[in-house]
Amino acid sequence: MVQFVHPSREDITLAGVLAALADPVRLRIVKSLLDRNGCMSCREAAPCPDMAKSTLSNHFRVLREAGLIRTSKQGVEHRNVVREADINARFPRLLKTIVAFSE
Amino acid sequence: MVQFVHPSREDITLAGVLAALADPVRLRIVKSLLDRNGCMSCREAAPCPDMAKSTLSNHFRVLREAGLIRTSKQGVEHRNVVREADINARFPRLLKTIVAFSE
Repeated sequence: MVQFVHPSREDITLAGVLAALADPVRLRIVKSLLDRNGCMSCREAAPCPDMAKSTLSNHFRVLREAGLIRTSKQGVEHRNVVREADINARFPRLLKTIVAFSE
Repeated sequence: MVQFVHPSREDITLAGVLAALADPVRLRIVKSLLDRNGCMSCREAAPCPDMAKSTLSNHFRVLREAGLIRTSKQGVEHRNVVREADINARFPRLLKTIVAFSE
């Protein structure tokens, strides 16, 4: 069974969050997850329908390792949710400010 | 004579700014420049006095190419200033929000 690695709240770093969001595709994924206000599968959150699955998986891995999203397995799907409470506790207003500039 | 390349305001991208600030050393350089409210030589803005000159130059180059600082030659020194007006015009509140979390 796949185990996802999530950093604890205290281990979320500013550098990690900024680096993860510095990619326009990843920023759009986070924005999509926030806009839909909840869980989405990787496929639903993909900014381009024709994006290779491996590329998409890599983007989700980077977001997960930065502490921006939490992934869980539900049946055959991976569901993703933005860790808003954790990010806002560590860096108040940061996520909202950055996501507002996403195209 | 050394010519420094600075992107125009319109060419400053969110991805470029976030990637440049995702490095703790570069973030501290920007914070130092902002705190001193004006120009500083590369050496003055160095977060560690024993940092290699080439490492420091590279950090300044990344910041410059992202549109975060403007470098000019004054005598034998390079003077640096944060392009606050340009960054704030492109991404209001972004710089202030991120720099506030710099250690």
